[in-house]
Amino acid sequence: MSLRKAGSIVKKDPVIAVVGATGLVGNEMVVCLDQAQLECRSVRLFASEDSVGEMYEVRGEEVVVELLDENSFKGVDIALFATSSEISKKFVPIAVESGAVAIDNSRAFRMTPGVPLVVPEVNSHLLNEDAKIIANPNCSTIQLVPVLHAIHKAAGLKRVVVTTFQSVSGAGKAALDELWGQTLAIFNQQDLPQEVFPHQIAFNCIPQIDLFMDDGYTKEEHKIIDESRKILDLPGLRITSTAVRVPVFHSHAESVNVETEKPLSVESFMGICSDVAGITIHRDDSDYPLQIDVANTDEIHVGRIRADLSVPHGLNMWIVADNVRKGAALNAVQIAQLLIHGRVQRSSHH
Amino acid sequence: MSLRKAGSIVKKDPVIAVVGATGLVGNEMVVCLDQAQLECRSVRLFASEDSVGEMYEVRGEEVVVELLDENSFKGVDIALFATSSEISKKFVPIAVESGAVAIDNSRAFRMTPGVPLVVPEVNSHLLNEDAKIIANPNCSTIQLVPVLHAIHKAAGLKRVVVTTFQSVSGAGKAALDELWGQTLAIFNQQDLPQEVFPHQIAFNCIPQIDLFMDDGYTKEEHKIIDESRKILDLPGLRITSTAVRVPVFHSHAESVNVETEKPLSVESFMGICSDVAGITIHRDDSDYPLQIDVANTDEIHVGRIRADLSVPHGLNMWIVADNVRKGAALNAVQIAQLLIHGRVQRSSHH
Repeated sequence: MSLRKAGSIVKKDPVIAVVGATGLVGNEMVVCLDQAQLECRSVRLFASEDSVGEMYEVRGEEVVVELLDENSFKGVDIALFATSSEISKKFVPIAVESGAVAIDNSRAFRMTPGVPLVVPEVNSHLLNEDAKIIANPNCSTIQLVPVLHAIHKAAGLKRVVVTTFQSVSGAGKAALDELWGQTLAIFNQQDLPQEVFPHQIAFNCIPQIDLFMDDGYTKEEHKIIDESRKILDLPGLRITSTAVRVPVFHSHAESVNVETEKPLSVESFMGICSDVAGITIHRDDSDYPLQIDVANTDEIHVGRIRADLSVPHGLNMWIVADNVRKGAALNAVQIAQLLIHGRVQRSSHH
Repeated sequence: MSLRKAGSIVKKDPVIAVVGATGLVGNEMVVCLDQAQLECRSVRLFASEDSVGEMYEVRGEEVVVELLDENSFKGVDIALFATSSEISKKFVPIAVESGAVAIDNSRAFRMTPGVPLVVPEVNSHLLNEDAKIIANPNCSTIQLVPVLHAIHKAAGLKRVVVTTFQSVSGAGKAALDELWGQTLAIFNQQDLPQEVFPHQIAFNCIPQIDLFMDDGYTKEEHKIIDESRKILDLPGLRITSTAVRVPVFHSHAESVNVETEKPLSVESFMGICSDVAGITIHRDDSDYPLQIDVANTDEIHVGRIRADLSVPHGLNMWIVADNVRKGAALNAVQIAQLLIHGRVQRSSHH
C-alpha cells in the first residue's frame, strides 16, 4: 500500500500494456495514452503475429509491437484489451493471474456479476483493489449513460426510447474500407465489395447491428438495454432501443426520448448536464452536434434538447460522440487514469 | 350527375393536369399517371417558363409542357399540384374557381379546417363533391399513418415516438445533386458544394429538416405530429418526433415505437397490417426493408417488428417507403383514382 498514492488503486508509475494495439480501437488507445495526462513507467504494445515489429511513438518513446502470448503480462500493471471476445476470454485471466488489472473492451465480461462495467462519469466508485477485471461498455451505451445518469439523479428515469445512427467505424478498419470502396464502386459503376456488412452500406441505412436474438432484437440493441441497466444500477429500468448503421465514417448519433418521474425543464436539464465533466451541451436549436464535427473529440455532445409534450414529463435530445474515442478507447484510458490517479484528468484535446 | 359513374366524384374521363410537372415530385406524378389504372381523356402538364416545351410521353400520347398561368385550368377536371407552398396558394384557388378539383402536395392547405388531408389507406371517406381542395400530406407522415391507423383500430393508440431517417430526395433534385457532388468532392479532395442543406450531408446525418419553430422542434417534426393527428382524426394523439436527414438518395425510413391501450401481439399486428392494401409486412427478423430496395416501389414496408417490453403493450418497428412515390406523387395519383373510380386500383408495379 505504501507504493500507492492517495486515491490510486494501482502502484505508482505502472507499466501499461495495450493488447490488440494495431486494430482500430487499440490504435486509438495508443493515441489516447499518448495524449493523456497520466504517469506511467512505460507502455507496451501487443498484437498478433501479423503486426509484430510495427513501431509507434508513445509518450516520447519508440515502442515496438510485441507478440501476444501467455508470458506477455509479466511486469504489466494495467492491461488494456482491444481484442475480440474470444481473445479476451483467453488472455484477460492470464493478465490478471500475472498481477495486472485488465480493462477489457470486448463484451466477454461486461455482464459477468461482480465485474464492474464502468463509465467514469457514472460509476467510478466501483473501482477498488478487488476489481481485477474492469469491463469497458459498448460504444453506443457509453455515450448514453452519463446523460441518463444526470437525468435520473435530478428527476428519476421513468422510460427511455433510443434509436441510434451508428457510424461504420464501430465495425473496425475493414468497415471503413467497405463504405469507401462501395461508394467508389457506385461512382465507377462497378460491382460493390461486400464483406463486413450484411447489405450495401453506401447510400443506405441498415437496421441491423450484430446478430439477431430470439426476441427479435439484435445483440447491439440488447447491449444498450442490458449494459445501461447495469451501469446505472437500475435493473428494472424501462428502456428500449433500435440500432441502425448509417453511411457515416466516424461518431455515433442517438435520438433519445426520455420520460421522467418528476418535472425536468429543458433549462434545468441543460444546467445539470453542463455541470458533468465530459458532457457538452449545445443550447441553441440550430447549433446541434454533427457526427463529422464530433469525430476525434473527447466529449459527449447533446443537442436538439426539447420538451416532449406527449407525456407529463418528457425530453427529446440528440447525443453524439466519437464511438472509437469516448465510446471505446478514451473511456478505457480514463479508467486507467482513475486506477492510477484516482480521477480522470481531462486533457485539452478536442 | 348523370355524367358520373357509380362511386366517382368527378365526371367520367376527366382531363388531368400536373402543375410543376418538371420537378422531382411532379415528374414522378407523370410517371405514376402513366402507370396508373385510371381512365382519363387527357393529361396536361404545366410548369414555369424554364421548362415550357419539354416533351413527355404519358399514356401513349406525346405531351408538351405548357406555361402555368391564370388561364391554364380551363377544361381541367383534376389538377395535381407539385409546387411550392407559395405557388399553390396562388394557383390552387384559381384551379378550383375554374371548376377543377385540386390535389395539392404543398403544405399550403394541409392544416386548413375543412380541407381533407388524405391518405387513401386511412381516410378516403372524406372525399366527396364538396371537397374541391384535397391536401396531400408530408412524405414522412404518409408512410406512417396507415400503420398507426391499423394499430389504432385494433388496440387503441396510447403514445407514438418516431425518429426518421429521411433521404435527400425529399429536398428535390438539387439535393440529389448535392449528395452526389459532395461525395465526389470528398474523393477528389476538393471544396464541397453546399447550397441545399445547412451542413455537409455526404457521410453525415443532419438532425434538422426544414426550419426551427419556437418550441425547438423543426417544421418537419411538427408536420409529422400535426398531420398524423388530423389524418387519424385523433386531435389529442400523444406523438413526438425527431426528423433526421441521412446520406441516402431515395426512400425514407422511420424507427417507430408505439404504445397501445390494449394488448397487441407481434403476430396480431402482422396479421392486421397484412390485410391493409398498400402495406407489406416483413415477417422474418433478417428480412427487414432497406431504403435502396424500397426505392421506386409503391408499398409501405414494415419490418423489425418486435415487442417493446418497457411498457405493458408496446411495439417497435422500422417503416420504409419511397418518399417521392408513395410519400408524394403516388399518393396524389391514388387520390385522383378515388375521385375518378371510387377506389384505388393498384397496379402490379413494384
